[in-house]
Amino acid sequence: MTVTVAIDAMGGDHGPPVTVPAALDFLVAHPAARVLLVGRESDLTAALAKSMSSARDRVAVRHASEVVGMDEPPADALRRKKDSSMRVAINLVKEGEAQACVSAGNTGALMAIARFVLKTLPGVDRPAIASQLPTKKGACTVLDLGANVNCTPEHLLQFAVMGAALAAAVDHVERPSVGLLNVGEEDIKGNDVVKQAGELLRASGLNFHGNVEGDDIYKGTTDVVVCDGFVGNVMLKTSEGLAQMLYEFLKAEFTRGPLTRLSALVAYPVLSAFKRRIDPRRYNGATLVGLRGVVVKSHGGTDALGFRHALEKAHAEVAEGVLDRIAQRMATMPVASAAAATDA
Amino acid sequence: MTVTVAIDAMGGDHGPPVTVPAALDFLVAHPAARVLLVGRESDLTAALAKSMSSARDRVAVRHASEVVGMDEPPADALRRKKDSSMRVAINLVKEGEAQACVSAGNTGALMAIARFVLKTLPGVDRPAIASQLPTKKGACTVLDLGANVNCTPEHLLQFAVMGAALAAAVDHVERPSVGLLNVGEEDIKGNDVVKQAGELLRASGLNFHGNVEGDDIYKGTTDVVVCDGFVGNVMLKTSEGLAQMLYEFLKAEFTRGPLTRLSALVAYPVLSAFKRRIDPRRYNGATLVGLRGVVVKSHGGTDALGFRHALEKAHAEVAEGVLDRIAQRMATMPVASAAAATDA
Repeated sequence: MTVTVAIDAMGGDHGPPVTVPAALDFLVAHPAARVLLVGRESDLTAALAKSMSSARDRVAVRHASEVVGMDEPPADALRRKKDSSMRVAINLVKEGEAQACVSAGNTGALMAIARFVLKTLPGVDRPAIASQLPTKKGACTVLDLGANVNCTPEHLLQFAVMGAALAAAVDHVERPSVGLLNVGEEDIKGNDVVKQAGELLRASGLNFHGNVEGDDIYKGTTDVVVCDGFVGNVMLKTSEGLAQMLYEFLKAEFTRGPLTRLSALVAYPVLSAFKRRIDPRRYNGATLVGLRGVVVKSHGGTDALGFRHALEKAHAEVAEGVLDRIAQRMATMPVASAAAATDA
Repeated sequence: MTVTVAIDAMGGDHGPPVTVPAALDFLVAHPAARVLLVGRESDLTAALAKSMSSARDRVAVRHASEVVGMDEPPADALRRKKDSSMRVAINLVKEGEAQACVSAGNTGALMAIARFVLKTLPGVDRPAIASQLPTKKGACTVLDLGANVNCTPEHLLQFAVMGAALAAAVDHVERPSVGLLNVGEEDIKGNDVVKQAGELLRASGLNFHGNVEGDDIYKGTTDVVVCDGFVGNVMLKTSEGLAQMLYEFLKAEFTRGPLTRLSALVAYPVLSAFKRRIDPRRYNGATLVGLRGVVVKSHGGTDALGFRHALEKAHAEVAEGVLDRIAQRMATMPVASAAAATDA
């Protein structure tokens, strides 16, 4: 199968110097894949000219005159920038020229434009942001990570259905276990929305584990963890902050004096293996799940290696037929579909 | 000033084998302090008999026939166990025999009993759980960590007032900066409750920094971070899970082969300094803030060193007059007091 990925090549903190080399590396690893680079033609042609890669013949450039700013209000990006690299890239998915879109740009704008252009899958009220976090046992798919700060129990149920379909497709887990993020394991715990979501999940036919707590994410208690976008965003950013702080503490201890600096030299292979293991670039790429198209958001500040991981994620989702799987699962969920119908 | 601390000596996963040695160590460090050990007299006398500490003469034992189970519903503990070690210890604060109570027992039961027996300070609708987390710059006081899973904007304002008073007293910060935990820095971000809380905070006269995100906690962006108990609990437990996972990853890397094991030997002093620096026992002790009495909750599974840190925290809060400071701050907050009045 030929997978064509449309890349918002101007998005993110760095733009073409990151997105173009990442695209070429990605193509080398996937000889059947193609890439559509979207952005200012002169910038992209110049970036491509720097490369000797034989993969260049599987790259086409699509001009887009505008760029969505990283801090631009999503509504403005949606209404006023019809020729942004982000929008044109998403249009290519809509028109069937590409099977997936990857952008390192403004998350809110990407969600707003993708939702407007692509629409949601049947039965899905609201798309969510899903990502994989490393755990003691492997990886955990967590959603929503920030798209929806106000959620109903039905939304959380839909996130669970989508997350389970995503984990089943990408991680090849037969019936992924689903945990509901809460403040305690007992069914009576939590706020009203979460308690009602628990009831829906118990009746859903999903492999519902029950409530999980914050530490269960990294313990790998379940394959999927569901939460609203407020909690998910705080959880994700807290994790980033803590990992960063711990890494700096460790570095500070190793550089404190001549002897500890010497031990850092000896311990260097171990420390770099450790750093690789928790390297956020390896986990880069959040899926905008619930849309009629594969859209992957890369971290804005990542480098070419990180952006390439986002491209790999998009490629895998297309290859594994994630969209069909989600659509099939949603169709078998009477509660979720009914909720969507009344909401629409 | 003589500070007397009432200890729920039966609480926690370990009971007297942890609480009694911790109490004696604490007394050695505070020659003017006294301790009231509450629990089954025979257990406590036996635990005390094992010690040769000269501090034993500043310990008195108060018999309580019952123990609140770690998983017991708070309502049951409140209604049915009038002679629990937890309740008797809180009663001692109410009666003025002790200035503070420390328990490693069931958090929900401790909050329910403390609130019922001690009542809240004027202007406080709901007590919150506050704790200090380590940051790049020092420490951050975060609340609520799990007492209130449904919060109004007024509750969040009250938490901010109490957190600022606590940080001012214990950390000696003149006007602690307060951050509102949110999914973005801009005022328009977040759900309705948080947006309204932001408005109240901007008008409060507190040193309000504005919205902060999850990573700002460990960056040390503000002295105090305010959130509802659902978000706070998930944030705290996620942090515990992540720190634990990273530590295990690091250990696994260092024990992978003979050479890396050798480098672990060389790096040992650095690793133990690192471990000490993030040792959760050093940060043990969460304050039940907003009550007419100092109540500190220790982690249930901690050892004597951790429990002693909780005792130190209670002692410091009494010595620094935290209750008076919170009461004074609440009295100067017309909005918060008015909200409390209409709610009552």
